[in-house]
Amino acid sequence: MKIALDAMGGDFAPKNPVEGAVAALRDFSDVSVVFVGDETAVRAELSLHDADHLADRISFYHTTQVVEMSDSGLDSVRKKKDSSVSRAVDLVKSGGADAIVSAGHTGALVAAATIKLRTLPGIDRAGLAVLIPAEGGVFILIDGGANLDPAPEHIVGFAVMGTIYARELLGCSEPKVGLLNIGSEASKGTDFARECHRLLSAAPIRFAGNVEGHGIFKRPVDVVVCDGYVGNIMLKTIEGLAKTFFSWMRAELKSSWIRMLGAFLARGAFRAVKNRTSTDEYGGTPLLGVNGICIKAHGNSSARALRNAIRVARAAVEQRVNERIIEAIQAHHEKVPEPEAAAA
Amino acid sequence: MKIALDAMGGDFAPKNPVEGAVAALRDFSDVSVVFVGDETAVRAELSLHDADHLADRISFYHTTQVVEMSDSGLDSVRKKKDSSVSRAVDLVKSGGADAIVSAGHTGALVAAATIKLRTLPGIDRAGLAVLIPAEGGVFILIDGGANLDPAPEHIVGFAVMGTIYARELLGCSEPKVGLLNIGSEASKGTDFARECHRLLSAAPIRFAGNVEGHGIFKRPVDVVVCDGYVGNIMLKTIEGLAKTFFSWMRAELKSSWIRMLGAFLARGAFRAVKNRTSTDEYGGTPLLGVNGICIKAHGNSSARALRNAIRVARAAVEQRVNERIIEAIQAHHEKVPEPEAAAA
Repeated sequence: MKIALDAMGGDFAPKNPVEGAVAALRDFSDVSVVFVGDETAVRAELSLHDADHLADRISFYHTTQVVEMSDSGLDSVRKKKDSSVSRAVDLVKSGGADAIVSAGHTGALVAAATIKLRTLPGIDRAGLAVLIPAEGGVFILIDGGANLDPAPEHIVGFAVMGTIYARELLGCSEPKVGLLNIGSEASKGTDFARECHRLLSAAPIRFAGNVEGHGIFKRPVDVVVCDGYVGNIMLKTIEGLAKTFFSWMRAELKSSWIRMLGAFLARGAFRAVKNRTSTDEYGGTPLLGVNGICIKAHGNSSARALRNAIRVARAAVEQRVNERIIEAIQAHHEKVPEPEAAAA
Repeated sequence: MKIALDAMGGDFAPKNPVEGAVAALRDFSDVSVVFVGDETAVRAELSLHDADHLADRISFYHTTQVVEMSDSGLDSVRKKKDSSVSRAVDLVKSGGADAIVSAGHTGALVAAATIKLRTLPGIDRAGLAVLIPAEGGVFILIDGGANLDPAPEHIVGFAVMGTIYARELLGCSEPKVGLLNIGSEASKGTDFARECHRLLSAAPIRFAGNVEGHGIFKRPVDVVVCDGYVGNIMLKTIEGLAKTFFSWMRAELKSSWIRMLGAFLARGAFRAVKNRTSTDEYGGTPLLGVNGICIKAHGNSSARALRNAIRVARAAVEQRVNERIIEAIQAHHEKVPEPEAAAA
């Protein structure tokens, strides 16, 4: 399968995308990569790696524009038609690639994918489905930041998509869905949250009611739904706090020789917990709901994270996630609010 | 000074409020406590402690109603006039107590305090000012959940109050304020977030722009402002992840004898980090903006947490926080959006 890689996306582009792609090409022999971006810059990076034996699985799509973090997502699609992210989406639309991987501007990827690929039949808004480490496993948070101001009906779409993704990815036969809120009772939260609760209660999913931030890590549910504004803030808070923990531990452990010895003996435990919370290992987050496989990697992705984002893209193509979402929605067509005619 | 303690508030009432109050009375000889709640139940709990020598600093205010978690905050004030939290607020209003401490229903405390005590002149909405541990110190998050759906102007009020509280509590001479958002650029976020950014840029505070969840633990700012819905979710996420982190560490450390030995040698470091993230130590969160000292303790507060919430109330009375907020707002009267006439 062919992955369109946004070679200019992310804080360390094209260096990390190129290095990550080389690692993915080495590890997954069924993957080929088309580097979308400044071809000269990409070739220069590529020359730093021993990648000659991978040449038959590498191609290039030269682009001249780059989306900046200060650009608005929608404007970037309209005004920067030759940006790496826009062209990568074009490739998937035309069938020139099976999936997109981008560590660039989230809003630009969401806008390009939604406008060019359209949403899946029955889905009005795409959502980023993020894996969050918890006790005894992981759960899926959707939306991690694709749509900041969704309507309650869109949250139902997130719940349906999250359910299918949890079934495919986590192997839950009947995934439970919780609504992220500030209290467990149905009456709690904003008007928006209460309306979401009402719609989710009637939706064709296994709705377990509201969940709260201090409870979710015990994994009472497999899927947590929320709007993209709250989801993105929560996600980054988790990331920030995980790093701060290790920084606190490091400082405390260095304060005496005895503690340093203890830390040395227990170093495997620290490494294991660190790996569990490392965004590098998860690599990429699928943008569910658009008619094509789009994987968003973190803006500051390492090469390892980008290699893993390509792994996630490969799995999403193999699992036919989008086809399954369409099937599930069609099966429950009459129960899903405001179904649209097939857009694709 | 006299503290009105909501003896029926919280998951473990009246047990933990009584035990916490006894500890506070022992530690702070200038504090007296009026237990607001079911007098028989409170006296029964009190008889389990050696508190006879504290009797001259203990009084009772008998109430017959309790606010349930399923009650709405506003309804609880209207319909349960003899609830412990309502009567505790009445006591502060009448001058019968200097401050309220409650581990009960947040919405009920906020509604009772806002309706009965009114907001401070120049402030339209109260906000919970929560201390969050970070690298090299703490920062203040406001609002932690008092107002779920504020207007952008209310966020400016939170910024002004947070600034004053940071000055008093953290000793920063010129506290920096950040707006919690999903990107650092002024153009990022929802319409609400962009309008907050615009108003904060013009407000009489030291505004440092947007901050994100993965950045705040490095303490780029002393005060983080956001609406109470996002703030409450974030707060509980921090709490949940902190506990999960220790649960992961415990499981990993137990997996071999070598690691267990390491953990034993380094146990002081674990304890230090645990204390830093323990909600017990912070105890209580001031509801800033109402015309009276109100301290909200966590719903599942331990006795230790309630003892510390009384400590926070005592400090707030001594520091004359409300007077300072009024002074600061008066000093910048013309710059604060939509100032109201004095309500008190």
